[in-house]
Amino acid sequence: MFLKLLALCLFAFLIYAPIAEARIRHYKWEVKYEYKSPDCYKKLVITINGKSPGPTILAQEGDTVIVEVTNKLLLENLAIHWHGIRQIGTPWSDGTEGVTQCPVVPGDTFKYEFKVDRAGTYLYHAHYGMQRESGLYGSIRVSVPDNFTEPFAYDYDRSIILTDWYHKSTYEQATGLSNKPFVWVGEPQSLLIQGKGRFNCTSSSLTADTCNTSNPECSPYAITVIPGKTYRLRVASLTALSALSFQIEGHNMTVVEADGHYVEPFVVKNLFIYSGETYSVLIKADQDPSRNYWMTTNVVSRPPNTTQGLGFLNYYPNHPRRSPPTVPPTGPIWNDAAPRLAQSRAIKAHHDFIVTPPTTSDRVIVFLNTQNEINGYRRWSVNNVSFTLPHTPYLIALKKKLHHVFSQTPPPEGYDFVNYDIYVPKIPNATTTSNAIYRLGFNTTVDIILQNANTMTPNNSETHPWHLHGHDFWVLGYGEGKFDMNKDPKNYNLVNPIMKNTVPLHPYGWTALRFKADNPGAWLFHCHIEAHFYMGMGVVFEEGIDKVGELPSSIMGCGETKGFGKP
Amino acid sequence: MFLKLLALCLFAFLIYAPIAEARIRHYKWEVKYEYKSPDCYKKLVITINGKSPGPTILAQEGDTVIVEVTNKLLLENLAIHWHGIRQIGTPWSDGTEGVTQCPVVPGDTFKYEFKVDRAGTYLYHAHYGMQRESGLYGSIRVSVPDNFTEPFAYDYDRSIILTDWYHKSTYEQATGLSNKPFVWVGEPQSLLIQGKGRFNCTSSSLTADTCNTSNPECSPYAITVIPGKTYRLRVASLTALSALSFQIEGHNMTVVEADGHYVEPFVVKNLFIYSGETYSVLIKADQDPSRNYWMTTNVVSRPPNTTQGLGFLNYYPNHPRRSPPTVPPTGPIWNDAAPRLAQSRAIKAHHDFIVTPPTTSDRVIVFLNTQNEINGYRRWSVNNVSFTLPHTPYLIALKKKLHHVFSQTPPPEGYDFVNYDIYVPKIPNATTTSNAIYRLGFNTTVDIILQNANTMTPNNSETHPWHLHGHDFWVLGYGEGKFDMNKDPKNYNLVNPIMKNTVPLHPYGWTALRFKADNPGAWLFHCHIEAHFYMGMGVVFEEGIDKVGELPSSIMGCGETKGFGKP
Repeated sequence: MFLKLLALCLFAFLIYAPIAEARIRHYKWEVKYEYKSPDCYKKLVITINGKSPGPTILAQEGDTVIVEVTNKLLLENLAIHWHGIRQIGTPWSDGTEGVTQCPVVPGDTFKYEFKVDRAGTYLYHAHYGMQRESGLYGSIRVSVPDNFTEPFAYDYDRSIILTDWYHKSTYEQATGLSNKPFVWVGEPQSLLIQGKGRFNCTSSSLTADTCNTSNPECSPYAITVIPGKTYRLRVASLTALSALSFQIEGHNMTVVEADGHYVEPFVVKNLFIYSGETYSVLIKADQDPSRNYWMTTNVVSRPPNTTQGLGFLNYYPNHPRRSPPTVPPTGPIWNDAAPRLAQSRAIKAHHDFIVTPPTTSDRVIVFLNTQNEINGYRRWSVNNVSFTLPHTPYLIALKKKLHHVFSQTPPPEGYDFVNYDIYVPKIPNATTTSNAIYRLGFNTTVDIILQNANTMTPNNSETHPWHLHGHDFWVLGYGEGKFDMNKDPKNYNLVNPIMKNTVPLHPYGWTALRFKADNPGAWLFHCHIEAHFYMGMGVVFEEGIDKVGELPSSIMGCGETKGFGKP
Repeated sequence: MFLKLLALCLFAFLIYAPIAEARIRHYKWEVKYEYKSPDCYKKLVITINGKSPGPTILAQEGDTVIVEVTNKLLLENLAIHWHGIRQIGTPWSDGTEGVTQCPVVPGDTFKYEFKVDRAGTYLYHAHYGMQRESGLYGSIRVSVPDNFTEPFAYDYDRSIILTDWYHKSTYEQATGLSNKPFVWVGEPQSLLIQGKGRFNCTSSSLTADTCNTSNPECSPYAITVIPGKTYRLRVASLTALSALSFQIEGHNMTVVEADGHYVEPFVVKNLFIYSGETYSVLIKADQDPSRNYWMTTNVVSRPPNTTQGLGFLNYYPNHPRRSPPTVPPTGPIWNDAAPRLAQSRAIKAHHDFIVTPPTTSDRVIVFLNTQNEINGYRRWSVNNVSFTLPHTPYLIALKKKLHHVFSQTPPPEGYDFVNYDIYVPKIPNATTTSNAIYRLGFNTTVDIILQNANTMTPNNSETHPWHLHGHDFWVLGYGEGKFDMNKDPKNYNLVNPIMKNTVPLHPYGWTALRFKADNPGAWLFHCHIEAHFYMGMGVVFEEGIDKVGELPSSIMGCGETKGFGKP
């Protein structure tokens, strides 16, 4: 009997003992179209192993993640980006169609393999055309090493992703965007919390087969909490368009992590979050435990023509589908930019985890963000250049010296700072298209100033969340109006700037970033609004291409790389 | 003055003189999604150079056709089949995804090059998933050599293609078909004549932006005729599902050509036509010239839940959009199979153009056509095998001896002739799936007996138009009920059988074909109903693979051929 117990005990130890060495986390995914009703409206959704959002990748710092993706999308290719993972040493696994790989054709299985070298909250999503919007996305949660103590305590860890949701297919949306005359995608039909929302089915004459609010697929997402416990809630946004606020009725949230970096804690009632960002917030289940509470998300920065997204904070043992007795809290005033700017400025590195930036930079590039029309086609531009993606991926073109596949004329480092008025719309045809890229000296320090301006509509400027692949950057400062190259850098935060991979550029404002060009490869930097990047709002950086290892043949096969990489 | 006139005359001669030697007909196509309203309902349509149907290919017997196709379909691949062109010596240009080539990815340009070795009426259309239904199709018209006299006379030559039209995308349709439980695509919303139809926009609550019957895009198609003249009208069907009748009010039609072969002329009032078939009919504009006449097309063989398709025979100089003063003629009785069988039997080779078939065959293969359910998935089967397409094209796999990419177990040559009851539905799971193929001795003569049977629905059998790639076959006979191997061959028409590439298999009937396996390559033989082939209703023949020339690298790159064919 005693021996049996000992054996059992040993067995349990073997199962539960923390394993110190890095592990391989192996996933096999099948990606296909399925009819789903995430917001009660039935439409084709791209699923991973039958689910959207797809499975959460759980790993520990230092682990290697392998995802074998089989494309079962009928006629459509795919590529998956691992958002926030820097892909050090594996730039070919970044999953950016046209930049780091050819798309994966139906029937093929593509193997992504990369190291998750830093704990934190990350994402994955399609990075091919506007495919992300079809539902191909999910969470990556990388835990800290075994003997590491995080600068805050919590009992349980939960993840949610906020998205907005369109009823039109991405083909329909994209065809409108590249149409002459331009057909805008419009505001989304719903907001989803972890893939669940609720469209007002009675608002148009839809049959119960098409739209049915009693479909369990669209019952509100609930996070169940035990009264008295503290929860780390990892909140991410992968909206196509919308800037959001996020709120849990009656509960404050303490922000402790942003894009994988510890934040000097601060408390919010509303968390503003932009597409591509991730935050960890701590919430304590310290309210009246006899009821549930609303989780709400609302559109900000654009006129809110989309119903707020609703979920439940479910106090155990209340039923997870029991509606709170209250009216859901309304969101903040949508067009008041001040609290959003204030939140951006409030995010600093945690005092014990400051990564001090270099005090100077080797190069400063200013990116003017404008909307324009080229030959009747509506486009977004950076320094008057609207980006077009070639069909031969840059990474391969650069490594194999296929100089003819993209323009070799360097794109502009800035704009006419003196004369350009950021408060007036551009005149048509004031921009051009190009697929040229920015080549950075390896290991140099680069400053990027994102400068916002007026859209084509008078008195209108939008919020753009910019996301950098392959790096984190220091956020040196935010400002209003036109950036002043002489004065504004003096106010940079060089003491405790947060590092991030996605950052908002506020209306008519500027955002200053600094990063080390220390990751050999070709990396996209772009507005994370799906339609904006599709319309040209992005750039590509190259650095240390000669230091990139041998490219796997799996990323080749399209454009000028057809027939490359025979196994 | 005289010299000038002489020079002009010589110049005119040089321009207009018939050129005896074969020419190259070079086309450059851009394929993309566009919003179009072919039946007044606005949806995404695949266009070629902005049009659906695409441009008509005009060539002369012996010419070489080169089509450079650029894929601008955003995220979707493509492949284009040249329907009726045998591709002698160019089996890699047949355009059949999974059989003769890898799909063409967005951004790539694929060059199809083939000889049109026989005058006649042919087609082209997408051959990838159910992509054909999205509008990627058109006509090929190959004229006779200069000094050749056709066995009939006419003044003008015109082409039309009949199609049925769905409002759901092919993604939506295909996802339903491969869903468990099965979701049938249903009856089409409209019938189109040369890309134009008319949906009843008021039948559901559609906005004028979505459905507008006054949109000129959906004004009825008109063929303008000069009173007294004779027209050769080339009529083809590329329906997704429907068997059709075609009629021109007040005008008889003399059938003179079928699938590129001259027919012993016969007169019809209704022409029955099945997906994949082409006919030339002669019509004389000999009616009251003060008005226009209806062209109508109706669904037969299935309950007609789709409004008839309408067009105009426009007598010059009446306005081409002036409606005839009459009510459009109704079609024949939809479920009367007798006149359809009679028309099939009436089609014989023209007495001056008989190609006599071999009197015996080397091999007889019987193909039992059944519907079944496999693990809850609805499928079509041939000899209890439901065909699945591998993602490594057969042509490459065979030539490169990649035996592992498809099953090497030969598929069955027949079924249980004695005991199988073709009048009862199959029990679920009575069939299996396979990607095995039929390997034919080169230059042997092969007989194919298509045997129809009951669907999963009691007392129901459907019409299946079977299309053979790479060959024409002799149509030896049609029969009702179960084919009798001992008696029925005695009644084969070996005297003047027509040669065709597409032939109907009538409900509960059989159709007997003979062909020479004389074209080295891998060739699909399948039901031309888009959903049926998608659900497994097809087989592949291989013959003389060792005689196939070097494969172009352009067809490679998918499945096991990734990295093949480095330029």
